[in-house]
Amino acid sequence: MDYYSSQISKLIEELSRLPGIGTKTAQRLAFHIINMPIDQVTGLSDAIINAKKNVQYCKDCLTLTDNELCPICSSSRRNKKQIMVVENSRDLAAYEKTGKYEGVYHVLHGAISPMLGIGPGDIKLKELMTRLQQEVEEVIIATNSSLEGEATAMYISKLIKPAGIKVSRIASGIPVGGDLEYIDEVTLLRALEGRVEL
Amino acid sequence: MDYYSSQISKLIEELSRLPGIGTKTAQRLAFHIINMPIDQVTGLSDAIINAKKNVQYCKDCLTLTDNELCPICSSSRRNKKQIMVVENSRDLAAYEKTGKYEGVYHVLHGAISPMLGIGPGDIKLKELMTRLQQEVEEVIIATNSSLEGEATAMYISKLIKPAGIKVSRIASGIPVGGDLEYIDEVTLLRALEGRVEL
Repeated sequence: MDYYSSQISKLIEELSRLPGIGTKTAQRLAFHIINMPIDQVTGLSDAIINAKKNVQYCKDCLTLTDNELCPICSSSRRNKKQIMVVENSRDLAAYEKTGKYEGVYHVLHGAISPMLGIGPGDIKLKELMTRLQQEVEEVIIATNSSLEGEATAMYISKLIKPAGIKVSRIASGIPVGGDLEYIDEVTLLRALEGRVEL
Repeated sequence: MDYYSSQISKLIEELSRLPGIGTKTAQRLAFHIINMPIDQVTGLSDAIINAKKNVQYCKDCLTLTDNELCPICSSSRRNKKQIMVVENSRDLAAYEKTGKYEGVYHVLHGAISPMLGIGPGDIKLKELMTRLQQEVEEVIIATNSSLEGEATAMYISKLIKPAGIKVSRIASGIPVGGDLEYIDEVTLLRALEGRVEL
């Protein structure tokens, strides 16, 4: 791209490596960044480096945090005996936004996927088993409702049940506000199977 | 957002200020960045700062570059007597990609828009007029085919014509591969008006 100068090309190249950002979007972002005030640019650049350098896994739940313990694990108001297992920190944030869950989490950082060659040893399962040696009343499996998420849920439940700990799975069904005619058959069947008495 | 630690929240906040990047995308990008190898993160962070610090306007055509003159203005193979007027550096790049244009450019950094309060004094028109005092044979106006682009084109042509310089406007019509039934009426009429004898 000799129609851009080297510094701009470099920025476009670096930006287009990010997921979901193609060359066109990278170009738009690059020119926007060049036109931003210098303090905002420094802010962005520093935020990137600081997040990378200071963020680590929470000692307990393995979510990404900049302290030894994440805000949830270090809170005295959370019920440590209820552990929700999620695939990643974004899923944790999604449940936190509901503001209703009072237990703690365990972040797997992935899901079992034979297709991608990700086995039980590649996700943070060993760490979960270690945590279960303390007093835990319930493990809620909140992996995604995808093929990988379901496989992971099955695997975990088989692993934990023998220990006599209650294992549950978040419900599958029609999303709130969902229109039945647009919902796929598998979800419809799941919703039927999981029907609740009124 | 107390479910993310401060460094992650800060990064998400900075990323979501960029155009077209909402909170969800910013979250996805932030976690991707945190999981990238440190040298790639440094590369991205440095590219942002370097592009901002070193990029300036080309002395002749006002495109963004990191030298006094951009690669196009400093090339001896380009015809300096033919100037294509574009709204921004991305439009310049779009024409450069065709590889067929051999003249030089002039970047306006905007278009006249009474709605947004952008007048002729707010874009780089004075600089264009200064350039026209040297020997110029043709000015090709390649502003966008939007309301603002057309208004700018009209304004520039009225400004330049009295000086006896040839002024042209890039053609408006059906895009190559375009299907007539999906093209809007204004474009169809333009294509008819601009018909070429075969």
